[in-house]
Amino acid sequence: MWHIDLNADVGESFGHYTIGADVDIFSFITSANIACGFHAGDPHVLNQAVKLAVQNGVSIGAHPGLPDIQGFGRRWIPYTASEIYELVVYQIGAMQAFTKIHGVPLHHVKPHGALYNQAAISADMAMAVAQAIRDVDPQLLLYGLAGSELIVAGEKVGLAVAQEVFADRNYEEDGTLTPRTHPDALIEEDKQVIERLIFMITKGKIKARTGQELTVNVDTVCVHGDGARAVSLLSSLQKQLIHNEITVAAI
Amino acid sequence: MWHIDLNADVGESFGHYTIGADVDIFSFITSANIACGFHAGDPHVLNQAVKLAVQNGVSIGAHPGLPDIQGFGRRWIPYTASEIYELVVYQIGAMQAFTKIHGVPLHHVKPHGALYNQAAISADMAMAVAQAIRDVDPQLLLYGLAGSELIVAGEKVGLAVAQEVFADRNYEEDGTLTPRTHPDALIEEDKQVIERLIFMITKGKIKARTGQELTVNVDTVCVHGDGARAVSLLSSLQKQLIHNEITVAAI
Amino acid sequence: MWHIDLNADVGESFGHYTIGADVDIFSFITSANIACGFHAGDPHVLNQAVKLAVQNGVSIGAHPGLPDIQGFGRRWIPYTASEIYELVVYQIGAMQAFTKIHGVPLHHVKPHGALYNQAAISADMAMAVAQAIRDVDPQLLLYGLAGSELIVAGEKVGLAVAQEVFADRNYEEDGTLTPRTHPDALIEEDKQVIERLIFMITKGKIKARTGQELTVNVDTVCVHGDGARAVSLLSSLQKQLIHNEITVAAI
Amino acid sequence: MWHIDLNADVGESFGHYTIGADVDIFSFITSANIACGFHAGDPHVLNQAVKLAVQNGVSIGAHPGLPDIQGFGRRWIPYTASEIYELVVYQIGAMQAFTKIHGVPLHHVKPHGALYNQAAISADMAMAVAQAIRDVDPQLLLYGLAGSELIVAGEKVGLAVAQEVFADRNYEEDGTLTPRTHPDALIEEDKQVIERLIFMITKGKIKARTGQELTVNVDTVCVHGDGARAVSLLSSLQKQLIHNEITVAAI
Repeated sequence: MWHIDLNADVGESFGHYTIGADVDIFSFITSANIACGFHAGDPHVLNQAVKLAVQNGVSIGAHPGLPDIQGFGRRWIPYTASEIYELVVYQIGAMQAFTKIHGVPLHHVKPHGALYNQAAISADMAMAVAQAIRDVDPQLLLYGLAGSELIVAGEKVGLAVAQEVFADRNYEEDGTLTPRTHPDALIEEDKQVIERLIFMITKGKIKARTGQELTVNVDTVCVHGDGARAVSLLSSLQKQLIHNEITVAAI
Repeated sequence: MWHIDLNADVGESFGHYTIGADVDIFSFITSANIACGFHAGDPHVLNQAVKLAVQNGVSIGAHPGLPDIQGFGRRWIPYTASEIYELVVYQIGAMQAFTKIHGVPLHHVKPHGALYNQAAISADMAMAVAQAIRDVDPQLLLYGLAGSELIVAGEKVGLAVAQEVFADRNYEEDGTLTPRTHPDALIEEDKQVIERLIFMITKGKIKARTGQELTVNVDTVCVHGDGARAVSLLSSLQKQLIHNEITVAAI
Repeated sequence: MWHIDLNADVGESFGHYTIGADVDIFSFITSANIACGFHAGDPHVLNQAVKLAVQNGVSIGAHPGLPDIQGFGRRWIPYTASEIYELVVYQIGAMQAFTKIHGVPLHHVKPHGALYNQAAISADMAMAVAQAIRDVDPQLLLYGLAGSELIVAGEKVGLAVAQEVFADRNYEEDGTLTPRTHPDALIEEDKQVIERLIFMITKGKIKARTGQELTVNVDTVCVHGDGARAVSLLSSLQKQLIHNEITVAAI
Repeated sequence: MWHIDLNADVGESFGHYTIGADVDIFSFITSANIACGFHAGDPHVLNQAVKLAVQNGVSIGAHPGLPDIQGFGRRWIPYTASEIYELVVYQIGAMQAFTKIHGVPLHHVKPHGALYNQAAISADMAMAVAQAIRDVDPQLLLYGLAGSELIVAGEKVGLAVAQEVFADRNYEEDGTLTPRTHPDALIEEDKQVIERLIFMITKGKIKARTGQELTVNVDTVCVHGDGARAVSLLSSLQKQLIHNEITVAAI
């Protein structure tokens, strides 16, 4: 028997602009990474996402990003480590206020986009993120790319960590995600996504883009809620997980 | 013997742009209203302001405003009451994270600019602000215009309130501030500002722009830190308060 | 035989966020109002919209709005007339640069959302918009709500004007649009939208929400490209216009 | 006898925030680089700066930057060359509208901050900037770092170029500016700034930070208007230029 946490990025709409079928997604996931208003989201969107999480019994995470709505937080803007620390503190605080008004605790923090990727490879940025979380609330769980610098930094500062894998993203041999600019960055086939995921969970291994197998700790899997087929993929995934005796539960 | 709290709006710089001589101001005040990044401030500025407050033993307040840095939060943008509730929740949370990392409690909340003025006259907006504060943390003190709808709303939801007066602003006969667009909005003479203030504290009355006297509760006085003469005014004020046996202390 | 110009608001996407099926819409319309980056759009979106307009032989208009992407330019922010003048000058200029790089002229200007509505009823705001257009380029056509203050102001400053009607919006008896907050603001039925439009063009009259008939000049009709049924509505509309011997052409 | 153009970055205020003593600076300079609202400036500030330039007979340039007011355009955000092209087109257009309403031509374009520095060393970014200028208006002059890729690109696309030097910045041996993060980035002494400048103009050489002499074409010198001593420096400079028979005039 295996256990897995399914997390998704939600609350990414902005004013009149909608991204993601949040209402549909919540019934499939166990952890929600809610955008904090810097790369996506706004106070209303954030409040709605926290409400949906509470209604669906989903664990709530802050999903801090770089302040770049136009670029959706995917461009690495060269902030200093101390500025990153401050950006993350700010966003966790904003999210915690919404969990408070709904009477639930904040469960975890997972950085977004360029911040996630930079904290995966830069020890300095990883430490800035980890310290921000620890200083605001040492009970918070840190979600980071499995085997990355962020996981190392989280453990160093004494946080509980959750190692994350992506079923619909390709990996390089060093364990980083194949950049979105690469033609093979995304795994398009639902069937392949599901097979990869079950392989990761049951074998503890990932097949890199080059074919090489990487050993990996898998605590949580990121699923995407913003594609046209998101809901049908999640529905198929749910069936295959049951079939393979993998229990879905928050950490 | 009288007691008075001196509060000032601080942390209003933004990136490369500076407003206010924060470092000089902190030694004169007992409460700081720190901008939360919507009408002014950014995560770094906010962190610096909280640090200065802690170093100077000044009580820290969140100073939420409308999201309009270009307009410095002084334009009333027609948000709904429920949007205002969400904007205020968000900003209190962001500020609370910074007080946490510095190991001090958040002391109070005072809305800024157009939000302050609107919450002074609109029962709906006042209630939105008061409920946001109460829902995030019922221990927080609410600072609002003395005698305004915001004070009424704060008391209704069970918050402790501090009634605020402005020594350098003129008042209308209904107790609202003379709008900044009016030529007589500001009291320019330092001497007159100080006299007005001592009159307010010791007599419990304000002279309106028309000359009429209004009865007023005075818990806290707003002083300004962003004019050229701010520091010299505060220095003279300090002497006159001592001379009149008025003790300056946070609430 | 009648002539009508069909215009639509396009170029309203923003970074990763998409609004409107621009590619599909362009084959039905004769004039495009392209968002200028203040309430929607960004330099890339704007460039793409101008390209599509050129490829489809559609006349290009600047669609300036208030600087409020989160509110999609639908909230009236209390700018002064002189600030509105400057906001409009800026946005027309930005759009003109894109028409220049594609070798076509800018054809018209139509204000967006709260700015459109305010310029319809406020003579001052109408004059600010009209003067901005005239000062940047007196050859530009001004699109405004039929019979509104904006049409009056445009004529006063010597601009050619196009009187606009909305087939899918209800009208009040004073000729203004029923506010979007009203339950009957929008006409939902395609059939009814098309009938209303043909009635307006052929009779020169609008039926207000109350049933009263208003006389109206109809130079151009605004159609919407951002609903789920936008393309099917436009397709049915096209057939009915042909059937009623109404020629569609830019002004 | 020598000729030199003195240019300064102006129009960098934003809403309630002020940077630069624009009113004082205009009497000393012959070319103004006016911020376009992306890294600094807003439509009102921009309009005021153009007015001041016209009143002082100063040539007007657009000063496009990256969209990052909080970072003042000094952080390199990894836009693609095609996005940079679009950002520059947009900003030139906005500025041109303001020169039109004041009845003067736009004279030149000089990129700002991180965009200036990136276009100095990256042939792709330099070409994106140069093409944007050429496509909007081939009569515009391009101001770029003397000897940089931007000058090369400008000449390639057929623009007239002005080679720029900085009297108060140190240079590396490759002719780039010493980064602002370096302790010796800025020359602090007024006397030294003036001597360096006269040396550059009369000898056609720059002394790099390491002491090595670099040959340089000097068409225009950037002076700064935002320091405390800006006006006194410019006043001394003016005297020394006269003394050395260097005529100050726009290009």
